[in-house]
Amino acid sequence: MASMTPTENTTKSDDHHLYTRIRAPKKSDIPSIHKLLHKMAEFHNATNCQVTESSLNSTLFTNPQPTPVNVFVLEVSSSPLPLHPSIIEKTFDLPRPVNDSEVLIFQSEIGTTIAGFVLFYPTYCSFFGKPGFRIQDLFVRESYRSLGFGELLMKAVANEAVKLGYVKVEWSVVDWNVGATKFYEKIGACVLEDWKTFELTNDALFSCGKLH
Amino acid sequence: MASMTPTENTTKSDDHHLYTRIRAPKKSDIPSIHKLLHKMAEFHNATNCQVTESSLNSTLFTNPQPTPVNVFVLEVSSSPLPLHPSIIEKTFDLPRPVNDSEVLIFQSEIGTTIAGFVLFYPTYCSFFGKPGFRIQDLFVRESYRSLGFGELLMKAVANEAVKLGYVKVEWSVVDWNVGATKFYEKIGACVLEDWKTFELTNDALFSCGKLH
Repeated sequence: MASMTPTENTTKSDDHHLYTRIRAPKKSDIPSIHKLLHKMAEFHNATNCQVTESSLNSTLFTNPQPTPVNVFVLEVSSSPLPLHPSIIEKTFDLPRPVNDSEVLIFQSEIGTTIAGFVLFYPTYCSFFGKPGFRIQDLFVRESYRSLGFGELLMKAVANEAVKLGYVKVEWSVVDWNVGATKFYEKIGACVLEDWKTFELTNDALFSCGKLH
Repeated sequence: MASMTPTENTTKSDDHHLYTRIRAPKKSDIPSIHKLLHKMAEFHNATNCQVTESSLNSTLFTNPQPTPVNVFVLEVSSSPLPLHPSIIEKTFDLPRPVNDSEVLIFQSEIGTTIAGFVLFYPTYCSFFGKPGFRIQDLFVRESYRSLGFGELLMKAVANEAVKLGYVKVEWSVVDWNVGATKFYEKIGACVLEDWKTFELTNDALFSCGKLH
């Protein structure tokens, strides 16, 4: 690290504020959420991501929803954010500006940037007879990683759970994602070591579902 | 196996029919579902089962439900079942009668016996933009195991998923339950080998949920 002399500018963060908020999505966020889902599939080397803007619209924005699914988006801007209902607002002082080459692709209708999202739905914890949440997806775009935004999204979901009297928030992590695993352990999450998850899809699901 | 002569009675199953059906629960089934949940906790050596009849009533039978949770019960009888809407009905020919010492404890309002249940709720498969189901609990009382009832409960859920156009049924299994694992592999379910599940509960959930 370079040493600083009194002549250097020591107001390190004035030019690198990042104004952030976590809020419920609007219909106009669908293209961003759709692209974030495909980016997440890429991150997981998954080739089976078939979600469309239309399927997101009908599952997230139809009233009543076919099944309850919640999304929170992470919105950022280098200028103060215009007033809007939010779950969390926080200003980050960054050592350097974020270099986001996709800022136009993930632009919101008010000119801010969508940097990530979390998608979750209610579960049922039968030993308590009470609901919980399962986080299906939590994703922050590469330019915005390691800045604390993942934690902010987690906090938003945990806060929602506590507010509603839900007893648990659960999620799954692929085991090569060591950074995520360490982060989740740091916030006090327990890993269910001796449980494995099964799934039935496609032909196996159809075949099992035949009654005769 | 003993050889049979023409003088032996070869109508082997007349006395051992077990009439079964899988159906939606009624309010009067709550005491049985409650006891089944506590039996399941016992099976898992879990000491934290706090579910009450009242919490089951408010989560399963309040309209609208706070969050969507489905239960199917497995009802059996040695006499033909009175007509009632059902998901599956099947008559089993058993080599011997079932010896159920708790038949009175798990008696339904029409005198049949509740032998098991499955509890599941909708999920959201974001790569497809479509819902699925997660089976939270599937339990058959000891006297009725290894007769095919677990498969019948699985089929009922898979059938419901297919009917609704859902793309997946998922569930977790504790790894010492080798019999269950083998059964799930037999019906074509895939195990998600490289994923682990985390959960945030109690103080860790409250702490994470604090925004300030």
